[in-house]
Formats: sequence, C-alpha cells, structure tokens
Amino acid sequence: MPDPLHDAFDSESFRALGHGVVDLLADYLAGATRGDGPVLPWKDPAAQLEDWPVATGEPLEQLLPRWLAASNHLHHPGYLGHQVTAPLPLAALGTFAAALLNGATAVYEMGPANTAMEQNLVHWLAAKLGFGADADGILTSGGSLGNLTALLAARQAKAGYDVWSEGQAGGAPLAMLVGEQAHYSVARALQVMGMGRPGLVKVPADERYKTRPEALHDARRRAEADGRKVIGVAVNACCTATGSFDPLGPIADFCEAHGLWLHVDGAHGAAAALSPKYRHLIEGIDRADAVVWDAHKMLMMPALCTAVLFRDGRRGYEAFAQEASYLLHRHDPRDEWYNLCGRTFECTKTPMALPLYLALSVYGEELFADYVTSRFDLGRRFGAMLAAEPDFELPVPPECNIVCFRYVPPKQGDLDALQVQIRQRIIASGAFHLVQTRLATGIHLRVTIISPFTTDGHLQDLIEAVRVTARPA
Amino acid sequence: MPDPLHDAFDSESFRALGHGVVDLLADYLAGATRGDGPVLPWKDPAAQLEDWPVATGEPLEQLLPRWLAASNHLHHPGYLGHQVTAPLPLAALGTFAAALLNGATAVYEMGPANTAMEQNLVHWLAAKLGFGADADGILTSGGSLGNLTALLAARQAKAGYDVWSEGQAGGAPLAMLVGEQAHYSVARALQVMGMGRPGLVKVPADERYKTRPEALHDARRRAEADGRKVIGVAVNACCTATGSFDPLGPIADFCEAHGLWLHVDGAHGAAAALSPKYRHLIEGIDRADAVVWDAHKMLMMPALCTAVLFRDGRRGYEAFAQEASYLLHRHDPRDEWYNLCGRTFECTKTPMALPLYLALSVYGEELFADYVTSRFDLGRRFGAMLAAEPDFELPVPPECNIVCFRYVPPKQGDLDALQVQIRQRIIASGAFHLVQTRLATGIHLRVTIISPFTTDGHLQDLIEAVRVTARPA
Repeated sequence: MPDPLHDAFDSESFRALGHGVVDLLADYLAGATRGDGPVLPWKDPAAQLEDWPVATGEPLEQLLPRWLAASNHLHHPGYLGHQVTAPLPLAALGTFAAALLNGATAVYEMGPANTAMEQNLVHWLAAKLGFGADADGILTSGGSLGNLTALLAARQAKAGYDVWSEGQAGGAPLAMLVGEQAHYSVARALQVMGMGRPGLVKVPADERYKTRPEALHDARRRAEADGRKVIGVAVNACCTATGSFDPLGPIADFCEAHGLWLHVDGAHGAAAALSPKYRHLIEGIDRADAVVWDAHKMLMMPALCTAVLFRDGRRGYEAFAQEASYLLHRHDPRDEWYNLCGRTFECTKTPMALPLYLALSVYGEELFADYVTSRFDLGRRFGAMLAAEPDFELPVPPECNIVCFRYVPPKQGDLDALQVQIRQRIIASGAFHLVQTRLATGIHLRVTIISPFTTDGHLQDLIEAVRVTARPA
Repeated sequence: MPDPLHDAFDSESFRALGHGVVDLLADYLAGATRGDGPVLPWKDPAAQLEDWPVATGEPLEQLLPRWLAASNHLHHPGYLGHQVTAPLPLAALGTFAAALLNGATAVYEMGPANTAMEQNLVHWLAAKLGFGADADGILTSGGSLGNLTALLAARQAKAGYDVWSEGQAGGAPLAMLVGEQAHYSVARALQVMGMGRPGLVKVPADERYKTRPEALHDARRRAEADGRKVIGVAVNACCTATGSFDPLGPIADFCEAHGLWLHVDGAHGAAAALSPKYRHLIEGIDRADAVVWDAHKMLMMPALCTAVLFRDGRRGYEAFAQEASYLLHRHDPRDEWYNLCGRTFECTKTPMALPLYLALSVYGEELFADYVTSRFDLGRRFGAMLAAEPDFELPVPPECNIVCFRYVPPKQGDLDALQVQIRQRIIASGAFHLVQTRLATGIHLRVTIISPFTTDGHLQDLIEAVRVTARPA
C-alpha cells in the first residue's frame, strides 16, 4: 500500500535530496563569494508575487534553483545592505541539523543538550562583556524581542510597583530615557508595553550621533515634570544609522547616581567585545543592567540568534514574573535555570545555540575576533577613502563597519533626491546592495561592510559606481 | 597567506562537510523512525551542563554525533511529548537553504522572494479558514509572538482610544475575556502589554474543558463592574491541556452582539481546516477577527513558523501603528504590503515561509490533510482504547491527537504522585516521551500523537508500560 506520508519521511529519499541541496548551495557559495551575478536580483513586489503561487506541484529540482536566483546573495562582496550577515556555512549546517531534530528549548526536557549549550554560551558571551559571576541571560528570536525582554525586566525592577500583576494602571505612568538614535524596536517595545509615546523621552545626541550624557538630566526633569516615573536609560552600542557608539561610562555614572536601569542595545556593536583592537568602543558596557547582542549581525550566524544578557542574572527571572520571586520564596528560581520559559517570552524557542556553539568549537574565538576587527578596519578605511574624494561627504567619521556618506556633485540639485536615485539605480544594476538613511543633514547612502569578501577594491568600485550612476542619462 | 576567515566560507569545504551532515542526519532519520534508541536520552540538567563547554576545539565529526545522541528524537514512534512536531525532512532542507541565504523578510528588499512566498502562503492559509478576500496576515516567530501581535491589533481596534500613542494611561483600563483553558502565552501577552492580572478575566469552561459561551455575559459584567473596558474574547482551537475545541459559533455570536474582538488561538487545532473529516471542529472560525496558527505544530514544520491571520487584513496594519493610518492618509497602507515590518513585531524576520512553501509544492495539500486526519483518528482510537481498560481514566474523550488520561490501579494511593512517578520513570527509560498536566480532577498523563510513525501498537505498548512502571519496585 503506498503511503505518501511515510515516504515523505524516508531516510534514503532524504539522503538523495539532501546531497542535491548541499551541491546546489555549495555552487551558490562558490559563485557568490567570487562576485558572480547580481547581489540583489531586483524585481517589483507585485511581479514577485506572481512568481510564487502556492502548491503548484513545481518539483524541488526546479523550485529551489529558481528561489536561489531570485534571492539576495549576502556572501557576494557587493553586499553592503542591511545589518544581516553572510552566515558561516558551518552555522547553516547547524541550523539544518537543529531544524530536523527540532529540539525546542523553552522547557528543558524538550531540548536538553540545546538548553545546556545555550546556558554555557550565554555565560561565555556575558563574560566577554566583562560581566561577573552573577550574570546570566537567554537567547531569543531577534533583537526586537531581546529589547522587549530586557525592557520588561527594567519595568519590573524600577517601576516601584508590581506592573506585571497590577498593570500600568497600578501606579504612576512610566518613562524610559532613550537615546534619539535608538533603533525603532525600542520605541516599539515601550508602546507594546502600554507606555505610549510619552513613555519614551528622547535624549539628544551630539554631532557624532552619540547620546549626550549631560542631556540626561534635562530629559529626566522633563519626564518627571510630565508626571512620569523614570525607570531607566536605553542607549546604543552602536546606533543603526551611523554606527556611533554611545559613551557608556558617563551614562552609567548617571544611571548609578539616580538608581536607573541601564539598557544597552548592542545588537550590532557588542561584538566589539571580541576584538582587542576595538574593545574600547564599548568601555563601560560591564556596568549595564542588560545588553542585547545579535549573533546574526556580527557573529556570522543565520537569523535569528539574539542574546539578552543581565549583569545580575536574577533580573532575567523577573521579566515575566509577577514579583521578585527569589525574595519571597524559600527557593532560588535559579535552581530551575534549565526551564528557560520562565525567562523568555517564547514558549517554544528554536535551538538557536547550536550554530554558534559549533562555530566556536570548530573555528575558535579568534575567527570572530578577526572578522570583527577586519570589518571595522575596512569601514574606517572606507571612511578615509570617502573623505579624500572632493565629491563625497561624510556626516561622521565611521567608528565601525557602518558608513554613511552622500554624493555631492559640483553642480548641486536636490541632494536628497539624488541619493535616493543613486541607490535605486545601483540596486537595480545588481552590483551592490546598499541602503539609505535620513540624518539631520539629509538623506545619506549607507553601507554595512558585513560580507567577509568585501575588499578595499570593491569599495573603490562603489565610489566609481556612485559617480557613474549620478551622471544624467 | 593563510586566511582562516575565507577558508571558513570555502565552498568545497562546505560541500564536503555538508555531505557528511546529510549522511549523519539520514542515518538518524532511519534509526529514529524505526524506533531505535531512546526517544529522550534523559540526563540531569546539571550533568548536561558539564557536557557542553564552549569553544573547546572539539571537531565537528565528534561534536555533531554527540549532540545527536544527546538530543530528543521526535521522529521516534515513542515521541508523544510537547506540541512540537517531527519535521518533514524536506522542510529541514528548506530551513537549511534559508539559513545559508539568510534573506530576512521584514523589509522587502532584504528577502524579495521570501516575502512574496510568505504573502501568498498567508492568503492560502487564510482561505483555508474560510476567510474572504479582505483577509491578510503575516508569519512570525512562534505562537506567543503571534498571540501578542493579534492582541495588540485587538487593543488598537477596540480600546476606544489610541493606546499605541497614549499608552494605557490614556483611558480606561482594559480587559480581555479569556477562556480559562487558554495557553499561558495569552496571559503573558496581556501582562507584557501592561494590562496586569485584572486585565485578563477568565471565562469558565464546561466539564469537557470547553469555554462556556453563556458564561461570557457574566465575565463581561465582572470586568465592567471592575471599571474596565472589555476589548474582546480569546478562546481556543484547541486548548493545550486536553485538546478541547471551544464552540466558536456561539462565541462569535456574543462578540458580534457586543462589538468585541474575537481572538482564536488555533496554534494546534487550526490545522483541522485542512482535514475534510475534522473541519467541523473549528466551525465558526471564519468569524474570528484573528487566528493564530502554528505550522510547527500540525503542519510538520521545524520551529518556528506561526501565521497570524486577520479576517480584515487592515487590522494587521494597526497592531504596531499609532492610528488607523488607512483612514487618515490618502494612501492605503496595503499598498506597501511588501515591507512586513509594518505588520510584525520583528524587525528582522527569518525567511520562515520557504519550508512550508516547498513542502506544499512538492507533496501537495493532501499530505497535510492525511497527516491531520490520521493523527486525530489515532488520538480518538487511543481514547477508546483507554476507556476500555478498567485501570485507566479519561478526563474527557479526545477530540484530536491530544489525549489526557491517568492510571488508577485497584489499590489507590496518592494518584497525583503516582502519575508524576510513572512519567518520570517512563521518560528515564527512553521508551516514550509523554508529559503531564494538572486538570481540575488532578494530575494527568498527556500525550500528543504528532510523530507520523506512532501506531495503535505503540499506544498499546504505552498502556502496558504505564502498568509495568506503576508496579512497586
């Protein structure tokens, strides 16, 4: 009797299919890393929609190559787009194994080895930040969820009443002082939490897009004058737009002086902790109450793998708890560290530790240090290259591998419109994927040098491509 | 010059490693599906922690088999544990390809093909529920985030003031009427949102663990007497503990009569939509305002892949927006459907559509229909088997593939303690993975028949294993 369901799980069919997929992906990798083909095969969304009808019976041998060709190629040296990395191939193999086994990690017995890997990895990452033995944390599905988790812990620790149990109606409305360059996921988290727009009080940045510590006093006064209880300060290491690192030391001084929570969104830049050369950029991060760190940004992992690290690990047990349970019960909740659902929003969590665990074991920490250092180095060299060109403007010298610039031709028209047009044309050409961002001085082009295959030569080509593209047709 | 970083991305090393991993996983699949080895190699968490130190230099050829042996084997016929499925091997290959390419989907240009696949898949799923042409939705990382997303849309639609902008302080405290058997992620979402414990008003269930529609009136009165504005009703298709399906039709009548949002957590049971035989269990689901449906439960996908489906697709644009922007702006926000970040909490989202898209294309919808029907059939047959045994008790006849029961030997002692002991011993034996749940009548054993390889024979073996295990040593 034919049994299509059991056939779909047949190990030998899977073996044959699997070898085919590996070959297809290896061929992709060979081509992409040497710069073959477009980095982004641009197509209009409406036309794209037509290409992918559901359940048509298209066979895998046709479907998967078609999907590969239509997808972005992050391993291409021209990939300079959003802060999503070209993953280590070994890490993708880890994701593959993790996906087949499907050992979720919210409850220990669902994924025992995955849970232990995660816990050890979290402690390893925390130690890299300079956190002490009390530190702890979890991995979660992305930086937005990471920021939400940490801000919930901040709310519970600093509101002065039990918000988890009583709700926002239980006491004074709350406010967080947030660096004006913070990622939009911070505002989104606070608004999800019912704090509204006034719950986010912006702290101005200086001309280098760094949060001004001396502006914290005024922000706090404004929040309090508005009848709000300030729970903490959220700043960046580094900010998304320009890659600027906030001065964590002076900000930590302010937080300590006023008993406020210090939240550091280190989604991108916390990885500086692994680079002896650039570690100084996050000096003071060991004084944060919580740090969010995306492994799918500067640790070459596939999305999603975000660490939420607490200096005092007990705080992580309060984010989703009605009370500081370790104070009220005889037992320490840390005795049950292995059931992660008590500390993460997720009730089923992918076994996201495996890819990073494998890569650290096989390649060692040095590979990551070299990656971070080489990409930050290249970002700074690109900044210097641009500064030397008369027709390019740098809004701020880059500190890491995020570089903003704009093209300012001798005969200026609408500079904002020009940048948008340049970007659209370059993307459509398939040569480079870069993004744009609006800064105080107008719209800028923006690159994140995140592919390990991008060199000075490619960036020189980008400069030339911008010039050529900007010429009237 | 040796370049370890480029070597780590070498296509031929990856090809060789990849073929090795495929063989290892194919061997696992062959063994697990025929029931080799323990389903769950139980180890104490503290001892497990010792097994996985970070960055030790252990080579992949040693590490990955060790991890496989220490992991749960969900494809094993004895896997009857949590509601996480034995994924289709083809789907794991999809996750693999998606992980290497890393084409995130929150912004169209990050993952153009993935975004189009997701959008078409979401419409396909919505149509299966009986939603009309206005329906829309997104995929997100897990049911908890799915419930949060839908409840945020409910809050914005029904609070009567702009909670997103003003925060909970902007108007009356809110309440949701929630079936008492709802998953804890619903309460968690409401408390994240700052609604506190009183923001969740429980609606009692009947003796079959189904929400009682006639109890909604009283719940609403209680909430209003407490000074709360009721925004909606959240119920189950089906509940986690016993797999009971709430009567959606009468509940929808109540919601329509009172202008309330109807949220259906169909994480597990919405898949009944694909089974002609069991579709009746979710009758009325097409009247829900939002439905959450986990593909990593009954659609054989690796975690995480959750659909959040809105009957009126425009509601999905309000979950993270300060206002019903389509009412206030000249343009329709749906014109920008392709930038999903406007509709999902996630700012970087994994390309989670690919595995399900591939499986539907290659196997067709029938495979999923057969899977749902065969697992629900088997759950009901297991219920009948248990009912026929004098020393087993069923708290409720199973409606689907979730079955609760307890062992009641002739000479009764502490029945709760006995179930806990039986479960611990069976798990430690490695023969079966089952869970336990506390119902009104005490602690029960609980299985979810989710592996396609579990047969009546295995369940007969489980009955015998329970008896043997319960005997005094």
